[in-house]
Amino acid sequence: MRFASPQDAAAAILAGNVRAAARLMRMLDDRIDGATATLRALYPHTGRAKVIGITGNPGSGKSTLTARLIGHYRKLGMRVGVLAVDPSSPFSGGAILGDRIRMMEFANDPNVFIRSLATRGALGGLSRSTNDIVHVLDAMGHDVVLIETVGVGQDEIDIVRTADTTVVVLVPGLGDDIQAIKAGILEIADIFVVNKADLDGADRTVGDLRGLQTLMAEMPDWLPPIVRTVAARNEGVADLSAEIERHGVFLTTSPTRDRRAQNRAAFAIGGLVRESVGQSVNTWLRDTAAGRQLVVDVTARRVDPYLAAQTALTQAVPHNPQLLP
Amino acid sequence: MRFASPQDAAAAILAGNVRAAARLMRMLDDRIDGATATLRALYPHTGRAKVIGITGNPGSGKSTLTARLIGHYRKLGMRVGVLAVDPSSPFSGGAILGDRIRMMEFANDPNVFIRSLATRGALGGLSRSTNDIVHVLDAMGHDVVLIETVGVGQDEIDIVRTADTTVVVLVPGLGDDIQAIKAGILEIADIFVVNKADLDGADRTVGDLRGLQTLMAEMPDWLPPIVRTVAARNEGVADLSAEIERHGVFLTTSPTRDRRAQNRAAFAIGGLVRESVGQSVNTWLRDTAAGRQLVVDVTARRVDPYLAAQTALTQAVPHNPQLLP
Repeated sequence: MRFASPQDAAAAILAGNVRAAARLMRMLDDRIDGATATLRALYPHTGRAKVIGITGNPGSGKSTLTARLIGHYRKLGMRVGVLAVDPSSPFSGGAILGDRIRMMEFANDPNVFIRSLATRGALGGLSRSTNDIVHVLDAMGHDVVLIETVGVGQDEIDIVRTADTTVVVLVPGLGDDIQAIKAGILEIADIFVVNKADLDGADRTVGDLRGLQTLMAEMPDWLPPIVRTVAARNEGVADLSAEIERHGVFLTTSPTRDRRAQNRAAFAIGGLVRESVGQSVNTWLRDTAAGRQLVVDVTARRVDPYLAAQTALTQAVPHNPQLLP
Repeated sequence: MRFASPQDAAAAILAGNVRAAARLMRMLDDRIDGATATLRALYPHTGRAKVIGITGNPGSGKSTLTARLIGHYRKLGMRVGVLAVDPSSPFSGGAILGDRIRMMEFANDPNVFIRSLATRGALGGLSRSTNDIVHVLDAMGHDVVLIETVGVGQDEIDIVRTADTTVVVLVPGLGDDIQAIKAGILEIADIFVVNKADLDGADRTVGDLRGLQTLMAEMPDWLPPIVRTVAARNEGVADLSAEIERHGVFLTTSPTRDRRAQNRAAFAIGGLVRESVGQSVNTWLRDTAAGRQLVVDVTARRVDPYLAAQTALTQAVPHNPQLLP
């Protein structure tokens, strides 16, 4: 499984070698030299998969819904890649409980590739890793790539920017409807799902969403539909799939299509730069005498953080501006 | 309320001029020139307030608990600053429903200063703004600064790194205990609160937490205590305050004290640099012909994002490395 060159590794992945793809993902996880070169060789072959982000609060039944969507697309004969993201620990770099049990039924389906991803720390690395792995799943020839994230914080918002279509899953009766809606999800959702729609309060949740949509200052060209599902009983999944399809048609015909794609590209570029610079600065602060002294001076309040940041930017970044392997 | 110089504005704030402080916070919000200079002049006068972060899932009763802590510290005659952070919309830059109703009882108390903060977008700006405002609240002479955040994602984790003591609020019976614990909170908590401890399942939540603590690979020098509260009835708040106090003593006597302070300073420096570089890159991608062409090329998959990021770093950052006004 060693390849003579990144181009050879990319060719194997494009030819359907799943082990080569899994190996590349591990190398990307560990930021091993050469991984980015392989990814770059794959990049021209990406852009064919339909990328669907699925997010929502813990307990909303996202994993079950994701499993149902996998089943739905498999019945249509499509190949499905899944990226399950755990924004877990900033310290241990891994999830305590990483596996999504309900997806295990697809573990032996050669047309379903499931990958878990834990956070890479606080440097924006999670959205970089997400982007990287989505590119690999795309290049592997999956027709659909599902990205499932835990929670609705800024990290999830960054992650779902990778997706063509973002599905936000709510659940009635948790008592935090309004707080969840505050957390930015109203504006990242292309489609709302009210899951567990057989529970009391489903009508109220749908009504709350409709009410908030009318409050939005700017009426967008796409009004996110609200789909009711009971994922545990596989109800409403076809409706959801139809809305995803309708959103895909919107994306390819909308006058905002190019702007959306460009915003996404600019976001990806900015994220890579921020991460690279953040790593350079961290390394400089930790591994040089000048950097360590600067940290001590800020801690003692002899130097303020703004001046220190200016110094770190000037000193650290020119020394290590290499993003490419 | 206009000051001849940043030093004059800082002097007014240090002398207790609340309107000058509020004005500085608005200027910081809008990133108005001169605001950072005033902040820098305040910086040597910071470091006296006890900074307490309070985080947890929506619906856990954090706001009520925060209000109870304010009441507790007020009874002790302490001055309290509060920063309520809404990591809300990446687009509108503001929370839909920003006010914490339960804190309103302190609106007329001159010894309580409450400030709301919404997200500044995806560039790490939220933790910068948090740091900035905590510095102002600290310089104003507040004995305690409470930072309350919504949720437990990466953004909240970044925010609570500003705090001396981080309180993570859980609630029994939401059915998402394990998922919440996955989200990195085990390792950021200095103190756990099981709020609504009169509900069924409180014992199980406490037991789950204890079990997970024993699973942690590295036994830390501080084992986060677990405090039960019923904030709505003001029960357990004195216990929580005592544990916060005990943690404060630990912080000043622990052999890891200096390392903790230095890690925090390094994190703040790195965050400022990342944000500044991110803004430079975004501006360059948006406002220059070369930047716009690069985005178009990435969108068309003629250039891969890694090469584009390298180009953006090389082109954009040297043109605008100014962090200071």
